[in-house]
Amino acid sequence: MPGNTFGRLFSVTTWGESHGPALGAVIDGCPPGITLTPEDIQKDLDRRRPGQPLSSQRSEADRVEILSGTFEGITTGTPISLIIYNRDTRSNDYAKIAQLYRPGHADRTYVQKFGIRDWRGGGRSSARETAARVAAGAIARRFLDQRGISVQAFTLSLAGIACRSFDPDEIGKNPLYCPDAAAALEMEERIKELRKEGDSAGGVVEIHARGCPPGLGEPVFDKLDARLAGAIMSIGAVKGVEIGEGFLAAAMLGSENNDPITSEGYESNHAGGILGGISTGMDIIVRAAVKPIPSISKPQRTVDALGQPAEIRVGGRHDVSAIPRIVPVCEAMTLLVLADFMLHPFPRAKTIR
Amino acid sequence: MPGNTFGRLFSVTTWGESHGPALGAVIDGCPPGITLTPEDIQKDLDRRRPGQPLSSQRSEADRVEILSGTFEGITTGTPISLIIYNRDTRSNDYAKIAQLYRPGHADRTYVQKFGIRDWRGGGRSSARETAARVAAGAIARRFLDQRGISVQAFTLSLAGIACRSFDPDEIGKNPLYCPDAAAALEMEERIKELRKEGDSAGGVVEIHARGCPPGLGEPVFDKLDARLAGAIMSIGAVKGVEIGEGFLAAAMLGSENNDPITSEGYESNHAGGILGGISTGMDIIVRAAVKPIPSISKPQRTVDALGQPAEIRVGGRHDVSAIPRIVPVCEAMTLLVLADFMLHPFPRAKTIR
Amino acid sequence: MPGNTFGRLFSVTTWGESHGPALGAVIDGCPPGITLTPEDIQKDLDRRRPGQPLSSQRSEADRVEILSGTFEGITTGTPISLIIYNRDTRSNDYAKIAQLYRPGHADRTYVQKFGIRDWRGGGRSSARETAARVAAGAIARRFLDQRGISVQAFTLSLAGIACRSFDPDEIGKNPLYCPDAAAALEMEERIKELRKEGDSAGGVVEIHARGCPPGLGEPVFDKLDARLAGAIMSIGAVKGVEIGEGFLAAAMLGSENNDPITSEGYESNHAGGILGGISTGMDIIVRAAVKPIPSISKPQRTVDALGQPAEIRVGGRHDVSAIPRIVPVCEAMTLLVLADFMLHPFPRAKTIR
Amino acid sequence: MPGNTFGRLFSVTTWGESHGPALGAVIDGCPPGITLTPEDIQKDLDRRRPGQPLSSQRSEADRVEILSGTFEGITTGTPISLIIYNRDTRSNDYAKIAQLYRPGHADRTYVQKFGIRDWRGGGRSSARETAARVAAGAIARRFLDQRGISVQAFTLSLAGIACRSFDPDEIGKNPLYCPDAAAALEMEERIKELRKEGDSAGGVVEIHARGCPPGLGEPVFDKLDARLAGAIMSIGAVKGVEIGEGFLAAAMLGSENNDPITSEGYESNHAGGILGGISTGMDIIVRAAVKPIPSISKPQRTVDALGQPAEIRVGGRHDVSAIPRIVPVCEAMTLLVLADFMLHPFPRAKTIR
Repeated sequence: MPGNTFGRLFSVTTWGESHGPALGAVIDGCPPGITLTPEDIQKDLDRRRPGQPLSSQRSEADRVEILSGTFEGITTGTPISLIIYNRDTRSNDYAKIAQLYRPGHADRTYVQKFGIRDWRGGGRSSARETAARVAAGAIARRFLDQRGISVQAFTLSLAGIACRSFDPDEIGKNPLYCPDAAAALEMEERIKELRKEGDSAGGVVEIHARGCPPGLGEPVFDKLDARLAGAIMSIGAVKGVEIGEGFLAAAMLGSENNDPITSEGYESNHAGGILGGISTGMDIIVRAAVKPIPSISKPQRTVDALGQPAEIRVGGRHDVSAIPRIVPVCEAMTLLVLADFMLHPFPRAKTIR
Repeated sequence: MPGNTFGRLFSVTTWGESHGPALGAVIDGCPPGITLTPEDIQKDLDRRRPGQPLSSQRSEADRVEILSGTFEGITTGTPISLIIYNRDTRSNDYAKIAQLYRPGHADRTYVQKFGIRDWRGGGRSSARETAARVAAGAIARRFLDQRGISVQAFTLSLAGIACRSFDPDEIGKNPLYCPDAAAALEMEERIKELRKEGDSAGGVVEIHARGCPPGLGEPVFDKLDARLAGAIMSIGAVKGVEIGEGFLAAAMLGSENNDPITSEGYESNHAGGILGGISTGMDIIVRAAVKPIPSISKPQRTVDALGQPAEIRVGGRHDVSAIPRIVPVCEAMTLLVLADFMLHPFPRAKTIR
Repeated sequence: MPGNTFGRLFSVTTWGESHGPALGAVIDGCPPGITLTPEDIQKDLDRRRPGQPLSSQRSEADRVEILSGTFEGITTGTPISLIIYNRDTRSNDYAKIAQLYRPGHADRTYVQKFGIRDWRGGGRSSARETAARVAAGAIARRFLDQRGISVQAFTLSLAGIACRSFDPDEIGKNPLYCPDAAAALEMEERIKELRKEGDSAGGVVEIHARGCPPGLGEPVFDKLDARLAGAIMSIGAVKGVEIGEGFLAAAMLGSENNDPITSEGYESNHAGGILGGISTGMDIIVRAAVKPIPSISKPQRTVDALGQPAEIRVGGRHDVSAIPRIVPVCEAMTLLVLADFMLHPFPRAKTIR
Repeated sequence: MPGNTFGRLFSVTTWGESHGPALGAVIDGCPPGITLTPEDIQKDLDRRRPGQPLSSQRSEADRVEILSGTFEGITTGTPISLIIYNRDTRSNDYAKIAQLYRPGHADRTYVQKFGIRDWRGGGRSSARETAARVAAGAIARRFLDQRGISVQAFTLSLAGIACRSFDPDEIGKNPLYCPDAAAALEMEERIKELRKEGDSAGGVVEIHARGCPPGLGEPVFDKLDARLAGAIMSIGAVKGVEIGEGFLAAAMLGSENNDPITSEGYESNHAGGILGGISTGMDIIVRAAVKPIPSISKPQRTVDALGQPAEIRVGGRHDVSAIPRIVPVCEAMTLLVLADFMLHPFPRAKTIR
């Protein structure tokens, strides 16, 4: 069944395999009248680009082209088609493991579901798929910019090393998108060690959305938090999502967790900006648990396509952690959710338009 | 925008307010040929019923009626309409706080979104809404039973008290649906204390789905874990969702978190039964973080409908914790997700039918 | 697969069988703040009521109740549940033909699809199902009233007898909803003859929507005309739909069919108010071809459930023509389509709000 | 709101403007394991290609490329992205009428809806958009071929000249896809005359689907006929759709229109293969009324973008009739509807698989 379309009013359909000719996205429902150039999109795309110090060495140019939906640099309300041609694809890196199922990957589940899989670089299940999400998210960002809404994600922890301080200006200054410069250095060191050991690490990403009006979200099933949870969990490698206090709230008392109400808003924001599935007007706060990248060069037990036991060492040009590249992907999914809800009929003019 | 329909092939639309004449659900897409009586549904409904020792004292009869979609006790493939008439509704309990926004509740966000709210018992935002989910989930359970799939949820922790052992037979024996009898007793004690203090508590629920074939889930946006996360997060009071190791995976190494593959399946199940958004055939494991119930009799700061500061003490017949009543709701949402995917075209006959 | 929900923003789910306990509709997405009483709905429901001179003698009370979604007589933005209990159901009328497939009916196709059917009065395939559509349409009418949009349908021809004049005031004055009093009398005579002969007749219904702003409709697949065509064709007995000149346009020249454009609008309205799938601001004109009612008392060749040849005479209390009862159903479906598009994000304030 | 996606299980999203860099489609939900090459698609695309004797002289190469969703020539179950680069686009042809609204076109309605339009060749509202539909339909055809279902459309009338005979072998032999060779010659003559006169013509297309199992269609809103009507009416220039006897049924008696039932099927097929919105197993018969092409070189009254009265003569390379190029488009939309329903869960194995 089709699972490659996201959003109901601001809708995105993505397509493309890791080692096919190209990948892309069609954005349908983007409001007309927004100035949009390839550079607007490229900016976000560059933030998830491999080739950065700590990331995979596959150096993809990743140039996005706009094929439709704009006229003289302005969106027209018709579908916007984006394409990114794949370059520097070394499928041969994968030929030797084509008949082996990589642990922690979707190799076997794709075969079980579809009876066939494109083994070149994971095909559709590759993290490369998220480039299309980031490109689409950049368009949502253009739209939300106009409405005064901004989204920023950052690295909260990596390989068990957690931020001890939060300096928003620091996020853009280190390659890990980490708001704590000291922690960022420790993380870098740990990544280098893990690369030598042939192992990998996970971490936690936190996402802040600022400027959202109250009233976004559609109870009882399409609540804002429900849609955010689904959106973030749809990113490969994410194994957990929480809003506001999240799992910590499970051990708090009601008198601790409730946010006292003031005439302007709330005295605190344990709720993470959402009550009853509807935005409160406070910052929306989401966290994503990211598992360690399953591609490791350490030997692992697996089976081949015939079910025979085998040992696998996953070589090739792999990142040690999905962080930091997953950070802009988390932003993109949040942007897409918010853009979608900003087009919903309610709330009306006073709060939104 | 409509947000009260869940599922694409096995679809449920719920309706009803806490203190309106009735609430209900329409299940559309349920396969024909399944024997279904009101008793099949009542069984699950009774498990979330208030009036149990530790739960709210509102003693609702909660009798479900089937109004359509069956003929001579068998589903016909047409929509199944369920209705539960509300009884024992004491709206007056709420009249005195009708003009005050309760902290931690959706009172203000509903007004901000819709410009109006039904203040009797929270109206649509009441936890009572979940009765319709449980009723619908019971039908999904009938369908999944036939396919050998079962879903069971239980209390993993409450008010910071965690289970130290897991005995599945114990779950049905204590009113907290807790697999550890000793922990259950401690939880009961804690609940009694909190009731005296006028405070409330949260907890963590764990959900197991057994017997799922590999191949369920639709990458890249409607992955099985994405849909489960959205489904569970749509339950009021849930603030976090995780799959398999969840947030713990963020601090593990790839060599620790990857599940070695065997010809029959996997040596371990850190993944929680899902890889690449597709079921692996192992047990599916989901956890939900439940916040403390916001209705507490301790005084809290808030504002009235005119924005003037006020103090509020929420009286009435409130539970101290959403646990244990949320346990069957977590099962219901999981059942609905799985029933939906079991009707998807792929995988085909060999694995599923 | 679920097929009982209509509309994307103003959404309706209907349920119920002809001879089950009740039928109803859930309207999700109706704007809040609209005054709505059961009487508002009853008015439209009474217009399709059987028991009128020329219609079936089944005298259903058809009282609608509102079970949710309003508070103190005003819509709240939450789902509105409507229920109509079935009364005066004589299932025994059908017992004798329970094992025979009625020609022109859906008896056999339901069995082929679902493997089971509720043979009492056609079950879900009964025209009685449209009562729920009319009830839901009445709510759409309340919403559209506020925006200055009205929808009226009437009988253009019946049993080959066509209107020769058009007097809008006449439509409400005769039981056939016919704008030509003289033609209406002829139609009544013809119906009486056909009843004696044990035969039935079809006809054509025309629908006018006035006051629609330009800009409604979503190219390229959810064009206004595409959605109207699907909506009208979903009514049982409808076999054709046309917009504006419709099939006549097929034989016209471009110079005849094009509507010259003026600064206020258009000099003519061959297009029926839609260009490129988007409303022009002119009246929207739709026509529906209605087949003769398949239930006739003349003998017909058929087979029984075992496939053996048989003769059938369909007794019971049947109408001779789906007209006039289908007229308010055509209005309802048009109202639902327009309400849906009126909630779409574009066009914006100037034209719509 | 997004309107560029069609289908729920076999889903197609199209994009692209007439004079933009490219147009294309993303097909999501296509079953895996189908052999598919660009040539399979090209074959259908060539049938709608301009440059044929009677069609527009714009000679587009229209070469389709497959960018994703296949591996070694076989579909993998992931989205299939198709692209057709635009060539030979002479936007200057349109520059002189950029500020004039063409009668019968969507120029003004697009501006009213979106506030902006791409005036080059009609932009998104151009008939060129249907190339993407035909390409997507060709993939549906591959899938349906495997299930023994075929779809063929042909010209029933053009400019008032109707076929008097039906020879299926003749359809592919004349450029008008007409089953009557003599009528085809008359139509060609009429087209030549109209071209000289600077006028245009419409016609009627008939579509036959053969080999459909009984059981396709989802009452009560997603009936097979409802979906076909919406699909066909979504094609630009179509103003009417009918099934089986269609508008003729409105004047027939029940005893004439009912199809007697036999153990194998039905004695006649007035119903056009659909009863109660579900396929009967007989041929599915649909007709589409096609309006004359609005682009004519005769002078017409219109207004400019400022609302001032003006005269327009639409030059450029225009067809005299949407027929025959619309014939493969009608096939494509029918193929897409049938492919979608063939993936629905019911009916089950015996009838479909």
